[in-house]
Amino acid sequence: MSTHEAHDAVDVIRTKRDGGRLSDAQVDWVVDAYTRGVVADEQMSALAMAILLNGMDRAEISRWTAAMIASGERMDFSSLSRPTADKHSTGGVGDKITLPLAPLVAACGVAVPQLSGRGLGHTGGTLDKLEAIPGWRAALSNDEMMRQLEDVGAVICQAGSGLAPADRKLYALRDVTGTVEAIPLIASSIMSKKIAEGTGALVLDVKVGSGAFMKDAERAGELARTMVALGTDAGVHTVALLTDMSTPLGLTAGNALEVRESVEVLAGGGPQDVVDLTLALAREMLAGAGRGDVDPADALRDGRAMDAWRRMIAAQGGDPDAPLPVARETEHVLAPADGVLLELDALAVGVAAWRLGAGRARKEDPVQAGAGVELHAKPGTVVRAGEPLMTLHTDTPERFARAREALADAVAIAPEGSRPADRPLVIDRVAAG
Amino acid sequence: MSTHEAHDAVDVIRTKRDGGRLSDAQVDWVVDAYTRGVVADEQMSALAMAILLNGMDRAEISRWTAAMIASGERMDFSSLSRPTADKHSTGGVGDKITLPLAPLVAACGVAVPQLSGRGLGHTGGTLDKLEAIPGWRAALSNDEMMRQLEDVGAVICQAGSGLAPADRKLYALRDVTGTVEAIPLIASSIMSKKIAEGTGALVLDVKVGSGAFMKDAERAGELARTMVALGTDAGVHTVALLTDMSTPLGLTAGNALEVRESVEVLAGGGPQDVVDLTLALAREMLAGAGRGDVDPADALRDGRAMDAWRRMIAAQGGDPDAPLPVARETEHVLAPADGVLLELDALAVGVAAWRLGAGRARKEDPVQAGAGVELHAKPGTVVRAGEPLMTLHTDTPERFARAREALADAVAIAPEGSRPADRPLVIDRVAAG
Repeated sequence: MSTHEAHDAVDVIRTKRDGGRLSDAQVDWVVDAYTRGVVADEQMSALAMAILLNGMDRAEISRWTAAMIASGERMDFSSLSRPTADKHSTGGVGDKITLPLAPLVAACGVAVPQLSGRGLGHTGGTLDKLEAIPGWRAALSNDEMMRQLEDVGAVICQAGSGLAPADRKLYALRDVTGTVEAIPLIASSIMSKKIAEGTGALVLDVKVGSGAFMKDAERAGELARTMVALGTDAGVHTVALLTDMSTPLGLTAGNALEVRESVEVLAGGGPQDVVDLTLALAREMLAGAGRGDVDPADALRDGRAMDAWRRMIAAQGGDPDAPLPVARETEHVLAPADGVLLELDALAVGVAAWRLGAGRARKEDPVQAGAGVELHAKPGTVVRAGEPLMTLHTDTPERFARAREALADAVAIAPEGSRPADRPLVIDRVAAG
Repeated sequence: MSTHEAHDAVDVIRTKRDGGRLSDAQVDWVVDAYTRGVVADEQMSALAMAILLNGMDRAEISRWTAAMIASGERMDFSSLSRPTADKHSTGGVGDKITLPLAPLVAACGVAVPQLSGRGLGHTGGTLDKLEAIPGWRAALSNDEMMRQLEDVGAVICQAGSGLAPADRKLYALRDVTGTVEAIPLIASSIMSKKIAEGTGALVLDVKVGSGAFMKDAERAGELARTMVALGTDAGVHTVALLTDMSTPLGLTAGNALEVRESVEVLAGGGPQDVVDLTLALAREMLAGAGRGDVDPADALRDGRAMDAWRRMIAAQGGDPDAPLPVARETEHVLAPADGVLLELDALAVGVAAWRLGAGRARKEDPVQAGAGVELHAKPGTVVRAGEPLMTLHTDTPERFARAREALADAVAIAPEGSRPADRPLVIDRVAAG
């Protein structure tokens, strides 16, 4: 470490270790020096653990987020003729909402610059899903992105490596050092990219439940409030919805399976929970962008959202009419008893879909477009012993056994007349204030 | 990281992060895997921070210590004809006690295998002090050490690299990651080396005050109790004394200066605090080794301790009669007023001696044998304005200015008749129980 550095990593670590507040200068320096390699990985991981255990206050997290943004480029959509709004989900099982949502909001006159990622672990990635569509490509130049936003109004593409590079480096470190779960670091990681992306309004879908990163509503609420504060401090109109992830969204988890279901929603059908959540998030995005007067249900009903979807897919080389990939093999999971399906665990279904080939364990792994889990019942449905509850899809049938293991305790069936716990889809709404 | 490892670093980190207890298997694995390089520095530093903030219980720390010992070799003094006892000090300003103590205890019939280190920062190192003696060498083979223990009864030498190598690697990491101050890690670092060294009895001198690593008695007491428990659990008779380090020990801080003062003590003179602490520690060592019947004051009075010193120095190539190095330049620090010296801050004197060249800032720095601070008054002494309070010694007079800066607030003088706070030299005694 150079002795010419104005600050000292150990001093910064000690400040947070001893429960103190990092000064603006300390935050600016440590984030920048870590990006430059002056602060070593073993120093940043010790600091991350101290942050996890001792926390950061709102001003510290805002400054940390700003420092991560300053480590890279910022996008600017101010030249667009329309306002912009974006959505971020903390990740869930069967969460394909971005697919119908982006064209729906675009059809209502608000541009959606959706920079997305790939899946890791039991939650799928939006880009993996769209790549199931023949010809579709995730990588766009900034110029291509800008043109598509002006022409089509919606773009879902891969985040460039120029946005918040400090976050990429820090995230990889947190992943191997047990420091992922720090709310200040989760919030600044998400928000640094969204703020750098330059959206005018942002809606956060913070998932709660077994299939979500946050298992309990209290911590999910804290994450939501922290992110709304960060967006607000950065001048982005930000709202968060806390939504249920105790059971999968819709009836599919898997790439091509979820595209198919998204198209059903755009065609005016699809599972009610997917439709409801898509509309709830669309209303928040429109309101945040100053178009609260527009009802997105109209655009879903009259086909404008579907038109926007087709143009969005085609603009990125995809053929919206091409048949979607289908897995080579399927097997059913049968209901073990007569009764009412009380529970269908989101995490178990997510892990099963992952093991069938829909997700990846490591960044460099490929995914199977056709793999996943198709549900034939959701909590509240009456089922009969021996009838299919789910269909498992994969190209590699040796995966069925481990997928079934994941599902071993996924299902609870109660005598007819029972009712599942009443879980509202939207649990809470967090706005600035 | 190999997927064939039985444990996972992130799981171990999470256990401690979430306030849990590490299992024996987790401790054994993580210490061994870190030594082998399978657990990365950034993972161990996150774990160290979690240990610092969430603690470890007695059984965890004992296991951690045992795992560090198992990373290297153990010495065995059971073939010696005499029992063994060792002393460890947590480090203070002017703390030359090992020099008179080791030959004194040897003269009383108990062998002293004292493996020591060099100084870093404001506290001096025992080896640096002895190296001021012309010809003396710190590095001995295990065979040479064994022979000297049998013949002379005392050896002060450099710890070989074979003892607790995990500790050396971990200490270097803690130093740059703000995780030095974790009591479980401090205690296991000290005790792993002392237990591996194979002593039968151990006395710990845990310093408290401005010049010590532990500034307050509460944390020093916690460290003492933790180390006594670790020694006891490992079958070593262990006692700790908490001793005052608010003002320097004796009247010198600096390598040759402290050797001179130590020889004065062995000759039956020397400052009272150095004599008192040497005797207090000698009594504990003798009692721990089963020779509580022997009064070490006799061996100091009748010259046997001085004889043992001369043989100990000569056995390691040193000439006990050679003149000690003297610094090229000296300057006085004068009393600013008439009155009673109320305070003479240990840390300030230690930093001044360090800046004059007695200590090092980095492991590879050389030290000046003659440099240091000589005191002409201690708290309680009546002083007159303009009389010398201290003499600064250095070979490099450009260092005087920064040494004086360190001493700017070191001294408090009160009107005659005032008395300094009553600080007993031995504050507390901690034994197993």
